[in-house]
Amino acid sequence: MKDLEVVAANGLLHRRAFLSGGAALAAAFTGYRLSDTLAAQGLADEPWSRKQGMLVQEYGTPSPYEKHVVRTLSNPKGDTRTQHGRTPHHLLHGTITPNALHFVISHSGNPDIDPAQHRLVIHGLVRRPLVFTLDTLARYPMVSRMAFVECGGNSGLLFSSEPLQGSIQAIHGLVSCSEWTGVLLSTLLEETGIDPRAKWVIAEGADSLALSRSVPIAKALDDAMVALYQNGERIMPGNGYPMRLLLPGWEGNMNVKYLRRLKLVDQPGMSYYEARTYTAILPGGKAYQFYFLQEVKSFITHPSPGLRLSGPGFYEISGIAYSGNGRIAKVMVSADAGRTWAQAALQEPVLPKAFTRFRIPWRWEGGPVVLQSRAWDEGGNAQPTRAELVARRGQTPKPVTNPLAFPGTHFNGPSSWAVDSSGEVRHVYA
Amino acid sequence: MKDLEVVAANGLLHRRAFLSGGAALAAAFTGYRLSDTLAAQGLADEPWSRKQGMLVQEYGTPSPYEKHVVRTLSNPKGDTRTQHGRTPHHLLHGTITPNALHFVISHSGNPDIDPAQHRLVIHGLVRRPLVFTLDTLARYPMVSRMAFVECGGNSGLLFSSEPLQGSIQAIHGLVSCSEWTGVLLSTLLEETGIDPRAKWVIAEGADSLALSRSVPIAKALDDAMVALYQNGERIMPGNGYPMRLLLPGWEGNMNVKYLRRLKLVDQPGMSYYEARTYTAILPGGKAYQFYFLQEVKSFITHPSPGLRLSGPGFYEISGIAYSGNGRIAKVMVSADAGRTWAQAALQEPVLPKAFTRFRIPWRWEGGPVVLQSRAWDEGGNAQPTRAELVARRGQTPKPVTNPLAFPGTHFNGPSSWAVDSSGEVRHVYA
Repeated sequence: MKDLEVVAANGLLHRRAFLSGGAALAAAFTGYRLSDTLAAQGLADEPWSRKQGMLVQEYGTPSPYEKHVVRTLSNPKGDTRTQHGRTPHHLLHGTITPNALHFVISHSGNPDIDPAQHRLVIHGLVRRPLVFTLDTLARYPMVSRMAFVECGGNSGLLFSSEPLQGSIQAIHGLVSCSEWTGVLLSTLLEETGIDPRAKWVIAEGADSLALSRSVPIAKALDDAMVALYQNGERIMPGNGYPMRLLLPGWEGNMNVKYLRRLKLVDQPGMSYYEARTYTAILPGGKAYQFYFLQEVKSFITHPSPGLRLSGPGFYEISGIAYSGNGRIAKVMVSADAGRTWAQAALQEPVLPKAFTRFRIPWRWEGGPVVLQSRAWDEGGNAQPTRAELVARRGQTPKPVTNPLAFPGTHFNGPSSWAVDSSGEVRHVYA
Repeated sequence: MKDLEVVAANGLLHRRAFLSGGAALAAAFTGYRLSDTLAAQGLADEPWSRKQGMLVQEYGTPSPYEKHVVRTLSNPKGDTRTQHGRTPHHLLHGTITPNALHFVISHSGNPDIDPAQHRLVIHGLVRRPLVFTLDTLARYPMVSRMAFVECGGNSGLLFSSEPLQGSIQAIHGLVSCSEWTGVLLSTLLEETGIDPRAKWVIAEGADSLALSRSVPIAKALDDAMVALYQNGERIMPGNGYPMRLLLPGWEGNMNVKYLRRLKLVDQPGMSYYEARTYTAILPGGKAYQFYFLQEVKSFITHPSPGLRLSGPGFYEISGIAYSGNGRIAKVMVSADAGRTWAQAALQEPVLPKAFTRFRIPWRWEGGPVVLQSRAWDEGGNAQPTRAELVARRGQTPKPVTNPLAFPGTHFNGPSSWAVDSSGEVRHVYA
């Protein structure tokens, strides 16, 4: 029974248990063993096996039984304020977020851009200002990479003094991961040339508020991309069609959508979103500004609040980890609120600045437990505790529903899911 | 100008040219250089920048300008025969096929399966027959992997004696690539136990024709998966909702959709699809049966038939390569119908039995050229020439529209795209 060795409290098993199980595993799962008779009954033809099925569609849609797997909308009628669409991570699996479910924050709706008319201008402190159409960009060398995009306000509700009750869609739904394909910004800047005085690039969108953010030139020349495709197809309207700036691992709002202008300048633009929204006042009164990086984070998706365990026995605990610093190096999981830990298995390939799926087998004995995960990245950075973050950045006095209330950005502490003896999962602080 | 070194005839450049270009590249691209005045004009506000945009949707859909990026349907009204939906690879980029555009072949429509009622039975030569619901499967350890699925009849039109004129959607549209997540079949077979007499597994679907195929037990115990999720979300109805058998790298039809039964037996079932459709009669009269593997293949997607080059100058040639044997090791590209070759760059990560995007820079001088790609996999297998395949398997006497006409399966030779001086791209044999 070595394969089912418990390596941390409350039934966490060695991550290799399921991969070398044999007879020991079979014993573990006999709860699902059925007689030959019942097995045969399982083959009875259901109605859908007795008639012609549904039509193949030009552009497919999910099963009618999956209608609940949608983004939650903060402003479904599109009143003249920001709309949020959050990703249902508790209903998804793997590492890719389907385009239809990628999180969206839209401050003035998704502009209906004619791609034949759209232009990208690169100007300012360059040698040759250039204008690019979608067709001319398509002639340049492209790259593809997996990358997460995360709103700086994602998980901000964890700064509340009391834990919000909601699914991870409400708590962590403003992060998603896609394969992005486009032209490296460094390639385009080789074309324009760079005046040595250029220190920042101001990126501006073609949405009606012309959202703009300032990007250090070093990031522009590192891995920044003018992205044209998302998971194989053209970028969705909510994610910046026909092109967006992709800054792998950096604050979502800086990944300017509907990109129409890159102006090279010698100082940042101090735009609304960098000078106000994503500048927090720290407890000592100092401004926390231009922090850019989405630091190492993880959360357990299965089980998570709103899901229910169907009884004691074996489960796989699974979740998502990512870091704007690079690759995930390690994820530890606890079933006793952080007192003992077991190492999770990481699904290969582990890619930099992208979702990594972690998994660990677990035998739930039926009593109350508190599940947590904690991730490390290849730079040696670990998720801080919630207490450390609150000491550094403050806490909101009561549960808030606006994730941009201060302090409300760049929370990367662990999440704690309490499982009670009925199998219900709730969000707690532990 | 070393960076723009021509390494094969008709302007194929070293694959590193674009990655270390500098001034030489800028010179190459001055066709797109515009004056400061024109750059400023590029910033004029278009109508979509002057009004509130479109609503954020619960389940997003592409831009209205992308309505043409759809599958082509062979039987759009769903008459009682097979429906095909083909992937528009010439309009996609990267390595992932969006679920909405994954190819579908549906012989009796897509069954509208209630996932709460669906059962998977594993029986026959096992120690313990077992019945699995979707909920019980969800408790097992899962894995995620990228894998292509390809119809055995994909590219079959290349057996025609004359080259079909059509886009790669018509020629190569029955292959797609996704991240699949589910439970390894080996895990479930550990639960049931295996009688040593078991040599084959008959997989059966819950569609109205109960499509079944026979799978050697070695494949079942290797990397076969009961897949539950596709690119993060539940599998689409056309791809097997709520579960399918995934046999990475093997003939698409064997990846049984709507999987409801796995019966372990001592000999193959000789079902319709294995005994008739995917058995070809070779020129010598011998049957070509149980060949399983989708062998190494590649095709250029950009440019490809139906697309048009907008004038002489620099382009990136890009395409897809894959092999049921494992990883792609090398892709060579020719611009002179196979007389001289240049090595393409492979987009990392190169994953086994998954799409690999290849790219190579090219300077088109404006004259007629013929583009080809040829791939090698890590097992040392190379794409055979069309002549070699025809000698081995025969040729259909004239262009055919049914890709399952014999010989019509498992074509993995190169494709040739002729570019004429107007920039038009056509399918040729060369």
